[in-house]
Amino acid sequence: MGLTSDEEPKTKDMENGSLSSSHYHTENLPNIHKVGVPRRSNLLKEFTGGVKETFFSDDPLRPFKGQTKSRKFILAIQAVFPIFEWGRDYNLTKFKGDVIAGLTIASLCIPQDIGYAKLANLAPQYGLYSSFVPPLIYAFMGSSRDIAIGPVDVVSLLLGSLLQNEIDPIKYPAEYRRLAFTATFFAGITQATLGLLRLGFLIDFLSHAAIVGFMGGAAITIALQQLKGFLGIKNFTKKSDLVSVMQSVWGSVHHGWNWQTVVIAVAFLGFLLFAKYLGKKNKRFFWVPAIAPLISVILSTFFVYITRADKNGVQIVKHIEKGINPPSVNQIYFTGDYVIKGFKIGVVAGLIALTEALAIGRTFAAMKDYQLDGNKEMVALGTMNVVGSMTSCYVTTGSFSRSAVNYMAGCQTSVSNIVMSCVVLLTLELITPLFKYTPNAILSSIIISAVISLIDYETAYLIWKIDKFDFVACMGAFIGVIFASVEVGLLIAVSISFAKILLQVTRPRTAILGRLPRTTVYRNIEQYPDASKVPGILIVRVDSAIYFSNSNYVKERILRWLTDEEEHLKANGLPRVDFLIVEMSPVTDIDTSGIHALEELYRSLQKRDVQLVLANPGQVVIDKLHASKFTDLIGEDKIFLTVSDAVLTCAPKVVDEA
Amino acid sequence: MGLTSDEEPKTKDMENGSLSSSHYHTENLPNIHKVGVPRRSNLLKEFTGGVKETFFSDDPLRPFKGQTKSRKFILAIQAVFPIFEWGRDYNLTKFKGDVIAGLTIASLCIPQDIGYAKLANLAPQYGLYSSFVPPLIYAFMGSSRDIAIGPVDVVSLLLGSLLQNEIDPIKYPAEYRRLAFTATFFAGITQATLGLLRLGFLIDFLSHAAIVGFMGGAAITIALQQLKGFLGIKNFTKKSDLVSVMQSVWGSVHHGWNWQTVVIAVAFLGFLLFAKYLGKKNKRFFWVPAIAPLISVILSTFFVYITRADKNGVQIVKHIEKGINPPSVNQIYFTGDYVIKGFKIGVVAGLIALTEALAIGRTFAAMKDYQLDGNKEMVALGTMNVVGSMTSCYVTTGSFSRSAVNYMAGCQTSVSNIVMSCVVLLTLELITPLFKYTPNAILSSIIISAVISLIDYETAYLIWKIDKFDFVACMGAFIGVIFASVEVGLLIAVSISFAKILLQVTRPRTAILGRLPRTTVYRNIEQYPDASKVPGILIVRVDSAIYFSNSNYVKERILRWLTDEEEHLKANGLPRVDFLIVEMSPVTDIDTSGIHALEELYRSLQKRDVQLVLANPGQVVIDKLHASKFTDLIGEDKIFLTVSDAVLTCAPKVVDEA
Repeated sequence: MGLTSDEEPKTKDMENGSLSSSHYHTENLPNIHKVGVPRRSNLLKEFTGGVKETFFSDDPLRPFKGQTKSRKFILAIQAVFPIFEWGRDYNLTKFKGDVIAGLTIASLCIPQDIGYAKLANLAPQYGLYSSFVPPLIYAFMGSSRDIAIGPVDVVSLLLGSLLQNEIDPIKYPAEYRRLAFTATFFAGITQATLGLLRLGFLIDFLSHAAIVGFMGGAAITIALQQLKGFLGIKNFTKKSDLVSVMQSVWGSVHHGWNWQTVVIAVAFLGFLLFAKYLGKKNKRFFWVPAIAPLISVILSTFFVYITRADKNGVQIVKHIEKGINPPSVNQIYFTGDYVIKGFKIGVVAGLIALTEALAIGRTFAAMKDYQLDGNKEMVALGTMNVVGSMTSCYVTTGSFSRSAVNYMAGCQTSVSNIVMSCVVLLTLELITPLFKYTPNAILSSIIISAVISLIDYETAYLIWKIDKFDFVACMGAFIGVIFASVEVGLLIAVSISFAKILLQVTRPRTAILGRLPRTTVYRNIEQYPDASKVPGILIVRVDSAIYFSNSNYVKERILRWLTDEEEHLKANGLPRVDFLIVEMSPVTDIDTSGIHALEELYRSLQKRDVQLVLANPGQVVIDKLHASKFTDLIGEDKIFLTVSDAVLTCAPKVVDEA
Repeated sequence: MGLTSDEEPKTKDMENGSLSSSHYHTENLPNIHKVGVPRRSNLLKEFTGGVKETFFSDDPLRPFKGQTKSRKFILAIQAVFPIFEWGRDYNLTKFKGDVIAGLTIASLCIPQDIGYAKLANLAPQYGLYSSFVPPLIYAFMGSSRDIAIGPVDVVSLLLGSLLQNEIDPIKYPAEYRRLAFTATFFAGITQATLGLLRLGFLIDFLSHAAIVGFMGGAAITIALQQLKGFLGIKNFTKKSDLVSVMQSVWGSVHHGWNWQTVVIAVAFLGFLLFAKYLGKKNKRFFWVPAIAPLISVILSTFFVYITRADKNGVQIVKHIEKGINPPSVNQIYFTGDYVIKGFKIGVVAGLIALTEALAIGRTFAAMKDYQLDGNKEMVALGTMNVVGSMTSCYVTTGSFSRSAVNYMAGCQTSVSNIVMSCVVLLTLELITPLFKYTPNAILSSIIISAVISLIDYETAYLIWKIDKFDFVACMGAFIGVIFASVEVGLLIAVSISFAKILLQVTRPRTAILGRLPRTTVYRNIEQYPDASKVPGILIVRVDSAIYFSNSNYVKERILRWLTDEEEHLKANGLPRVDFLIVEMSPVTDIDTSGIHALEELYRSLQKRDVQLVLANPGQVVIDKLHASKFTDLIGEDKIFLTVSDAVLTCAPKVVDEA
């Protein structure tokens, strides 16, 4: 559309003549430096640099540099299986820590697994299966030392609600299970692919605030779902939103609740919460909340067995398949309609699982100060889920509650996961029949007491205090999950996060700068009320890269600042503005639209007899200003290293007097 | 997930003690200023401020301030119908200019209209209808003085190809036309709605570079489509991609081409291109290319009529309906399946039409230095298309070629559109029968000569020189349009534009700063090779707001800079880094994830015995650092107004010696 006009600029001479060093004042620390124009690097170098910074910002090949071939091979093996790296320094002291931690998380995971499998609408043994194989794989490939692998509440809920949209888990349990394995397979593939393609940064697009809201909403949704087991209700809604669940609960209040169930559930929930409180109050008692669930299961199972409360309507687990994971490769759908459905569900569940695992991994890595390679971690988690999908496991990831217990119990390496895995193996082989009389209510109590800590109202309040937009994302996700569904909440969270980025690049901030008294420092006059404007000069700072999405706005906003200023000056009978200095320090990049906007700004200013001056354009920007010949248009001598230099040249007398 | 650790920081005393003014050196211009913390504005004010800047950045209510009620009413009328504002200063001189311009663009638009209607698969009179009503509406409501309204090539092509995906225009011409009016109606509604909701900035998301590529691709596609008329081919593909068209052309080379048609087409294309060349060479002859199409039509029609070439296979227009626009309100689909389809097509066509009109309007407004209110303009264009859809018009917008002629012919106001409209009225009423013998080939020649100027290879080359990423967007759109379809090209253009924004906020630039010799100015050492690092101090500048999408990257990148520097220092036996100064000037905003990353950075640095120091955080950032108590964590005395201040405090002796 030929938007670049070929009209030749009529460069006006500046009123104060061209720049010469005589304008500088010795007490103002003269700058003899011009804006630096770096040598243009060639295109290939620029391109590879960009690719490297985007995909290989962590420089994964650094240790391989200058090594022999055999050494490189060993390093490669160690890169894929970190166990061969840290395994060499492994010793008995570490093993002792890992065994204690492993036993502790095993006692926590067994009852949780059975409950979480129900959240995913799967039989209880699938929860245990998922705590056997994946932790073993992770122990060899993962680089986090503290994460505890297994099924987790939010992913179980998400997977369950996505799967039951496709297949009814009660009518068609076999097909449902097959779809679950298919989704798990694709979740693993998604995770590993993101890691291999080094696209790990994509999961950063789910903001921390959105995750807090999403987790809080999911926690409440999960707790609400537990009311079925907690109150012993038989006909319960399949929907997960607050309104449907409350209707189910109140609708059955007169004849649907089972008082024996309620008594067991309330008593043990009280016990679990007290244990939790104790553990929080005194860190020495961290093991109390960790083993309380298992104790509850044992006690309540024994109680039901003795009293045969199941005959009075107390629902029990009834049956858990004995023996270890059967293979399930042949159960994954590789053809047909369900492939696409399984793929979609797998991608969503895989991403959420990844987000959770990486957040946990990073938190603990920061606490113990070791580096976590996000992309490598994704490959490990992905492999673990692919193998899991072939051995009757559903999507697993790092569990926050169990990882925290693992950390506090003194785990040293991922050997604690192996220990846990062994305990689960023994459980599957030996003691599953003992769970027959375990009341469902106790599982509900355990899940409720576990998810409560996901409702992180303190962080939500902190978010509210720090950033209102983040709070909107947080609440949007929270309300979406509670009142609509997990998927809707997730969608809201992602949308608001994106909207925030787009808004930032569409409406960047601009500020008027003034000179701080007795300095050569120019700062935002709103932030520094004692900064004073320089007569005859308007200094505007643009706080963003100038891109197509904001170039028009930036141009018009600068002109509006000028119009406002001129009106103000006129009203007060002050001298007019002769120079408009644009402070470019925060302008980190500019594109063709941005340069176009600057050209238009220059022309508009010329018509108003105001001289455009630029201060401190950065490396990329000055490069592009040269490439586009914009520097020739406004004149090289209108571009300064600092605002102070520009002011000194534009109005030397005024500054003198100040 | 409780990511905010409650671990208390063990604030280390800085090696050089706390900040006191004695560290400052008089010759270094002491700064007694601390980082300003503005009074927190209340939430409502902050919110309304944000909304105002986002949606009302042009301050549309400014003229209404402090006016009487009756004056406000008049201002409101003038705001909706600018003709009542500029109409009062209208005079004979202006009218003379407008009449000449109006007649010139009329002579250009009549043959173009007939050709463009064919692009949209509509009968020729619909092109003329669309040059009658919409320009009239625009003349009253529009605020551009130079834009020439009517059907345009790209929108006609886009509309035609989107519509024929739904309905075959040859088999079901009536339904096809109805869907076209429906799409036009919704295009107008979309445009007006965007304007009324002040969402005009949304169209800025189509970058200039993408538009250049899209337009170039569309021009080639349109030219290729004209080969049908140009070569007199009867069986021509309906697809618009290069491969299909070329197959059609070569497939019919032996018996499908009509030599008489080719002779006429080539001869007049030569004439038109020569006229164009003449007009470009000497601006006084701008009217030559403007009236050349009409002359071609008259000459060729006369020639065909005399020789009865139509009997030798030269295809002619045959029939154009006489009389002005029939009403078409009752033809718009308001119910049924076609509503949704019409809506979707309308939204796409409306947005593209809007993009073109605003780009043109802004270009000419900048040339004559008047302001164009984007949102108001959208309401005008929208209204014009809604009314158009009810009077047998299809989507119209500002035409670049005719607007340029309008400008050069000396138009003064949008009265030139009224003049053009009147000429079209006379044409419809009186001389349409004369077009009967006009050969289709001449229309193809006219369209080809018109679209050629859309291929803006000079701008494309400029884009290549300035910004490689922009060039990718440009080429992506271009290739997408040519080899796939208009829609695919558009989708590619939008996707690449978005990807660019996301990449920018995911991988922001960082730089190591050094001190310029004999100054207190710190700049990127890559841009200023003579800038020198300060021993014991690493100064890193982060070139972007720190958001959830980049917070992890920023943290890890800073730590990597530190690791690199430490390795370098160690290798050269130089003293270690004691202080890491983060220059925050370009950090225009921070969110909770960003603060979290800073906290993690602080902890990692503490473990490495390096002190974190911040320089010049902006208004929003310092506010949030306070709200999150991060300032307490690192200590208020570690936050400085400038890098220079920070360096003076951290290593006063070193700087002394320099």
